Amino acid sequence: MGSFACSTWTTFLCILLSVSTIGAIYTPDWKSLDARPLPEWYDEAKFGIFIHWGVFSVPGYGSEWFWWHWQGERNPFYVWYMMKNYPPGFTYADFSPLLRGQFFDPQEWAEIFEASGAKYVVLTAKHHEGFTNWPSPNSWNWNSVDDGPHRDIVGELASAVRNRSLHYGLYNSLYEWFNPLYLSDKKAGFNTQEFVRNKLMPELYNLVTRYKPELIWSDGDWEAPDTYWNSTEFLAWLYNDSPVQDVVVTNDRWGKGCSCKHGGYYNCKDKFTPGELPSHKWEKCTSIDTHSWGFRRNMKIKELMDLPTIINDLVYTVAMGGNYLLNVGPTPDGMIPPVFEERLRSIGAWMKVNGEAIYASRPWRVQAENATVPVWYTSKGSSIYAVFFLHPMQYSFKLSTPKTTESSVVTLLGNPEPLRWAPLPSSGLVILLPELPPTPAQAWTLKLDGVY
Amino acid sequence: MGSFACSTWTTFLCILLSVSTIGAIYTPDWKSLDARPLPEWYDEAKFGIFIHWGVFSVPGYGSEWFWWHWQGERNPFYVWYMMKNYPPGFTYADFSPLLRGQFFDPQEWAEIFEASGAKYVVLTAKHHEGFTNWPSPNSWNWNSVDDGPHRDIVGELASAVRNRSLHYGLYNSLYEWFNPLYLSDKKAGFNTQEFVRNKLMPELYNLVTRYKPELIWSDGDWEAPDTYWNSTEFLAWLYNDSPVQDVVVTNDRWGKGCSCKHGGYYNCKDKFTPGELPSHKWEKCTSIDTHSWGFRRNMKIKELMDLPTIINDLVYTVAMGGNYLLNVGPTPDGMIPPVFEERLRSIGAWMKVNGEAIYASRPWRVQAENATVPVWYTSKGSSIYAVFFLHPMQYSFKLSTPKTTESSVVTLLGNPEPLRWAPLPSSGLVILLPELPPTPAQAWTLKLDGVY
Amino acid sequence: MGSFACSTWTTFLCILLSVSTIGAIYTPDWKSLDARPLPEWYDEAKFGIFIHWGVFSVPGYGSEWFWWHWQGERNPFYVWYMMKNYPPGFTYADFSPLLRGQFFDPQEWAEIFEASGAKYVVLTAKHHEGFTNWPSPNSWNWNSVDDGPHRDIVGELASAVRNRSLHYGLYNSLYEWFNPLYLSDKKAGFNTQEFVRNKLMPELYNLVTRYKPELIWSDGDWEAPDTYWNSTEFLAWLYNDSPVQDVVVTNDRWGKGCSCKHGGYYNCKDKFTPGELPSHKWEKCTSIDTHSWGFRRNMKIKELMDLPTIINDLVYTVAMGGNYLLNVGPTPDGMIPPVFEERLRSIGAWMKVNGEAIYASRPWRVQAENATVPVWYTSKGSSIYAVFFLHPMQYSFKLSTPKTTESSVVTLLGNPEPLRWAPLPSSGLVILLPELPPTPAQAWTLKLDGVY
Amino acid sequence: MGSFACSTWTTFLCILLSVSTIGAIYTPDWKSLDARPLPEWYDEAKFGIFIHWGVFSVPGYGSEWFWWHWQGERNPFYVWYMMKNYPPGFTYADFSPLLRGQFFDPQEWAEIFEASGAKYVVLTAKHHEGFTNWPSPNSWNWNSVDDGPHRDIVGELASAVRNRSLHYGLYNSLYEWFNPLYLSDKKAGFNTQEFVRNKLMPELYNLVTRYKPELIWSDGDWEAPDTYWNSTEFLAWLYNDSPVQDVVVTNDRWGKGCSCKHGGYYNCKDKFTPGELPSHKWEKCTSIDTHSWGFRRNMKIKELMDLPTIINDLVYTVAMGGNYLLNVGPTPDGMIPPVFEERLRSIGAWMKVNGEAIYASRPWRVQAENATVPVWYTSKGSSIYAVFFLHPMQYSFKLSTPKTTESSVVTLLGNPEPLRWAPLPSSGLVILLPELPPTPAQAWTLKLDGVY
Repeated sequence: MGSFACSTWTTFLCILLSVSTIGAIYTPDWKSLDARPLPEWYDEAKFGIFIHWGVFSVPGYGSEWFWWHWQGERNPFYVWYMMKNYPPGFTYADFSPLLRGQFFDPQEWAEIFEASGAKYVVLTAKHHEGFTNWPSPNSWNWNSVDDGPHRDIVGELASAVRNRSLHYGLYNSLYEWFNPLYLSDKKAGFNTQEFVRNKLMPELYNLVTRYKPELIWSDGDWEAPDTYWNSTEFLAWLYNDSPVQDVVVTNDRWGKGCSCKHGGYYNCKDKFTPGELPSHKWEKCTSIDTHSWGFRRNMKIKELMDLPTIINDLVYTVAMGGNYLLNVGPTPDGMIPPVFEERLRSIGAWMKVNGEAIYASRPWRVQAENATVPVWYTSKGSSIYAVFFLHPMQYSFKLSTPKTTESSVVTLLGNPEPLRWAPLPSSGLVILLPELPPTPAQAWTLKLDGVY
Repeated sequence: MGSFACSTWTTFLCILLSVSTIGAIYTPDWKSLDARPLPEWYDEAKFGIFIHWGVFSVPGYGSEWFWWHWQGERNPFYVWYMMKNYPPGFTYADFSPLLRGQFFDPQEWAEIFEASGAKYVVLTAKHHEGFTNWPSPNSWNWNSVDDGPHRDIVGELASAVRNRSLHYGLYNSLYEWFNPLYLSDKKAGFNTQEFVRNKLMPELYNLVTRYKPELIWSDGDWEAPDTYWNSTEFLAWLYNDSPVQDVVVTNDRWGKGCSCKHGGYYNCKDKFTPGELPSHKWEKCTSIDTHSWGFRRNMKIKELMDLPTIINDLVYTVAMGGNYLLNVGPTPDGMIPPVFEERLRSIGAWMKVNGEAIYASRPWRVQAENATVPVWYTSKGSSIYAVFFLHPMQYSFKLSTPKTTESSVVTLLGNPEPLRWAPLPSSGLVILLPELPPTPAQAWTLKLDGVY
Repeated sequence: MGSFACSTWTTFLCILLSVSTIGAIYTPDWKSLDARPLPEWYDEAKFGIFIHWGVFSVPGYGSEWFWWHWQGERNPFYVWYMMKNYPPGFTYADFSPLLRGQFFDPQEWAEIFEASGAKYVVLTAKHHEGFTNWPSPNSWNWNSVDDGPHRDIVGELASAVRNRSLHYGLYNSLYEWFNPLYLSDKKAGFNTQEFVRNKLMPELYNLVTRYKPELIWSDGDWEAPDTYWNSTEFLAWLYNDSPVQDVVVTNDRWGKGCSCKHGGYYNCKDKFTPGELPSHKWEKCTSIDTHSWGFRRNMKIKELMDLPTIINDLVYTVAMGGNYLLNVGPTPDGMIPPVFEERLRSIGAWMKVNGEAIYASRPWRVQAENATVPVWYTSKGSSIYAVFFLHPMQYSFKLSTPKTTESSVVTLLGNPEPLRWAPLPSSGLVILLPELPPTPAQAWTLKLDGVY
Repeated sequence: MGSFACSTWTTFLCILLSVSTIGAIYTPDWKSLDARPLPEWYDEAKFGIFIHWGVFSVPGYGSEWFWWHWQGERNPFYVWYMMKNYPPGFTYADFSPLLRGQFFDPQEWAEIFEASGAKYVVLTAKHHEGFTNWPSPNSWNWNSVDDGPHRDIVGELASAVRNRSLHYGLYNSLYEWFNPLYLSDKKAGFNTQEFVRNKLMPELYNLVTRYKPELIWSDGDWEAPDTYWNSTEFLAWLYNDSPVQDVVVTNDRWGKGCSCKHGGYYNCKDKFTPGELPSHKWEKCTSIDTHSWGFRRNMKIKELMDLPTIINDLVYTVAMGGNYLLNVGPTPDGMIPPVFEERLRSIGAWMKVNGEAIYASRPWRVQAENATVPVWYTSKGSSIYAVFFLHPMQYSFKLSTPKTTESSVVTLLGNPEPLRWAPLPSSGLVILLPELPPTPAQAWTLKLDGVY
């Protein structure tokens, strides 16, 4: 490129190319990258909040894949919705001025997230639509400062979230459905990299150096191999030389075939639910609105997870060694819908009493049992936690797995006094439950010390 | 008016004037009108849903009085909000195209209302803004068919609500903040009646004959005397000659000084809470959103009544002989916000178990007591119902007011078996509570038969 | 109407009814009204400007009858245009916020009108769409102060026009295509008068007393008889008791069958062109844009009258005893399109030289002849004017009608020196033309004194 | 760039770099490029139409520099206009959906251009705002296909213009006021070339290969040297290897200091008017609207050039060896305002008679004289043309410069017969003029054969 003067992101690319050779810890190949230990904060956090906010929040119909359904696959429901409600020439870009965010208050969001008991927050910095929630120089007139709210969403939320000592992560889609540079690379069988060079890499570099995210939640990788995306070079730079080299956590969506196989922790599929204890750190991402990650104007109660379902799902995930990333979709006005706020605060109320069984816990030797009612186990140090959900019909509660000794102590979290219990013949014990304190979560935790 | 040909509503006016003299039951004076017995369905219904939907739902800021705050009193918060978010010449009327109602489904609304346990529904046919939710010929280009959703909201909801056997009422504001005819009458010290003649009377007549509402919830009466509004003439016609003469119920807002004194049942003030048992049938209207009757885009959980508060309020109201009209504000898209939907369905779940203590009940000789925890009494036939809210700390529950006999029977609604109890020395009894079935409403009902 | 308090316009109606009997000059019947002499200013003015500005200026497509073509007759061109360019629920009322008028400067308009040589200006106060260009209390939320420009167009233009000593007239449509009150009267075979009572009469009264127009250009009368419109009562009041009783001029559109027969001067049909000298004072109204009276966004030069055509038409009209009312349609921004401005200023340039033949002129005993090229005659006092249009091929110009004497004098307007001429045998004369001063109007005037 | 796959425009850049060395005609330096002869069609064409159409046409206020005045220099007139008419957060990008172009008909435009007598047409493919009038892959969501008219303006006009045998040129701004990549390069003292690499070069390449323009009208060069813009490399490619290598003409705006010095023909400054005959082929670009190149909603007649002024300017320019590029600014609806259409058609009418003196003419040995009235000379072969503007007061017309012989012949263009003339003593002649045919252009041409 002799005739061009050198620039910031070119420098960055040079680094990408060079680091592999100059005494760096990680080389740009999966063997080396996969060997990096996961920064500890992540496994201890257990519970995070996922936020999908973007231009898709404006139509707020169907899901955050609105654009694709409408103009990519030409799904008749979406085509019809647009025909019925918008003028013929209306484009997706025309939605962007309506992402007003006039009530967006990052302090309020952060207060709710903290109150939920979450320890990290992941925001869609850029979804498949390509709209960036920060003033990316490579996304002129298609970002949250030039358009819509006219604010640096990524930056403002960063401060607010960190003020409350929560970890901050950023979601970034590798591909962009309709970016003409991407489409042209795709047409060329991914043998060209115009898009990667002009958009993806400069933006990732910009995101990391500007906002120092502690988690990069990559997505949209499935159409092309990691070699197209430059993933290993990027990760090598991220782990070796970036300002977040020591703390950053990544997931596993870095190219076709990578998911559940390479990267940091594994997401595998959306809402992935393993049947048995996975051997690699994982995260379940899921959404309160079961139909969508982005805000839907017409959501109904029966389509939303209720509190007991969420608590159950969270406990199950943690018992299985996973983190739980629960999604909310703010409105185009910038509000977290009250029904989501209520869910989050209620989770927090439950966590205040029962969080001891969750945060920094480890899976126990057994994950579940069902002697009286379904129970999920976690452990921390020498304590075992048994979380149960069904309100048992009687006061005697049987656990068949723990082995007791004479010094075993059983308590109900939130209840000061130790409970009376008796060992069962070979293993297990019977516990005399007190009256269970009412909780809308319908879940209680027994703590067992001195059992094994 | 000799030179003018006669017309429908003129005819109606003539009737208004003439009926008083021709063998009709009610004469257009309060003495006669106040003597009309209240149709029975109303007292038995106890619980109704109030809906505020209009152009005010579009800004969705502050409250449904947005227009007044903004341009009437020039409240700086509203002025600033408009300056910050809208172009300088933007008028209130410019909001109306945005009342899209694209998801308005009266069947879904009615299903939710029925599920809430409500027995009647009252919709704002016209609020103080003057915008009519039906195609009023006297409100050209300022109604829901010419503008906004382009649908007959009053009519469509009428069918859906009646299909579910709920009673249907219509809210109508007598005054209109900015109607130039009203303003001109006001300037003339209410010595002219241009507004009443051209807008109010034709519309009330149109509403009644077209939709046959079983309840007319009058409002906006306070600036002028009933003589200006033509209230007694209208009510005489309504009670004597209208198609709803036998079933229609009205409230008490028919002119300055009428409230709590004349009309059908009494609302007195909004959210009126009497200190002792009123002697006249009354209704407490209140709103889940404590800040507004209309939808607010930026509502937060702490500003909304939670379920226990609502149930408490409802039970208190019924114990004091009132009806409870609970308000929800739909979005401009036509949806009932999920957090409201959840409240309504939860009320319904509670009512399914405890509604026996509510519907068609009567106040008991005592309304409340507080021996163990606060208790509200209702009665029906020979049964007495004691509703309590606090989860008592022990299983023995004391009631000091009921007088027992040997054949007294005590049950917990939702629990099949009779409870054990023992009389207390002079009056009252001690009841042995079973474990209370968990309910997010945190309220349970004891039914006492054979006590007095 | 005993139960109603009396009001301003009711009073006005009473007057309407009573004046006919109390020593007034005109009685509310055509015989009396038609006998009123036309105020003199009108015939002397000869040339006026017509302005069509309203919500129709916003779509600016087809013509000012846009609404009717679109939703009245459902003309496929209009339906298609709306389908192609606007969302499905878009209503005509939704156009009104776009009538911004941000450049509306009545001083500039008036300056252009004065420069055109016009002596009066007629503005559409209200067209068939019912939108009033003044804050009519009977057209709430459908007028130029509540909507669109948020200005009193009628009032602001009144001052500007009068500052330049031009006469000011107002166009008012009796009927309103889609007014529900009008439609209901129409459905009732015009046997009811809700519309006349609630809208038409109060507005006419308001217009006259507030703005004191010197001309009322009535239109939209053809669907109903004058008895429905209350026309004769209104005119009797206008001529007897209104503040403009002495100066006001009216036209002839006051009810089905009135046109060309009753009222003040006659318009007969739009763009009416009589074949011979009419016996009653008349006016030709026509529009520079031959396709529309309202602004059209897509007008092309070949659809507009060019200057020579306009001058020809004007001279012909005046020669035939008519007034010439030439229309321009301003843009929604409030500008007179430059091509119209240029036409008007060019007319003015021609009038500066030739206006002597126009203003305050009378038809001559002969209106036209064609000895050399077509010629139109006018007269004033003892002078005769012969206006010709074709650039004659030679310098000798023959007129066959005037009879000369020895003292006859011939001049070319704009040329200081008298011309040489010679009588022709029986009648007529030959004139030696000078070189004709170039004018884009391609029309010159010969003045003949001492001929008969 | 080893790690990136190679792509179309990268290839193009390689070519840029390599061509200079492989036996190409032109090397990327001014000495070589400036030596290229101008393709002949250009000098013969003489008269072209310039079109400024873009997002700036939507506000249509001030000039096409609206964005800069508003947000770059924060000119109070523009700031105030936006404050008064648009909501606070309104951005320039929000104008783009309003560039509807619903009446854009390239056939109609081309018909008008042809009728004007122009021989070439130059459209703003991209102005300083960066919005591209074709679907540039490097300007996603900021081009005429993704936004506004949703049409390929550059492409559609290309076909229409070429169908009428007019030459087609494209205006392209090198710089973009607010492009963040440009701003970042600028901040870096133009030592980086992110903008050139990612936007400018790919787009120029795309424009040329896709639309094959015969003229590239470069602009916006003044802030940075040609080395930053890569101008010489681009031109070398354009002249050596592009599909338009033989026919393409360029101007002189290729970097700070280039104007009037390097490139193809010279524009020097906008509306440049040389005092004496320039030695290098030049072009005068000017605009009918003297205040703006883009459409202005509030233009007035006195701000527009009238026909005689334009003809005078055109003739003067041609006499001085220049081409005349006359600008019109279409409306956001896609119409050429009628007043512009009229000017263009009138020029064409004049050219039909007098074009012989213009097309393919050469400057004569003398450019002007003023014996009777001002006269401009052109020549073609052995004919001399003298164009005069003032209507002379007498029929004898003196020219002092031409030298006659006995066989000299003088005619008036548009007049079949030769004129009578007589030589003057030393040089010059007196001509007896016929009556001049009336023309709104007020300009006539004498053709002199056999003079020198």
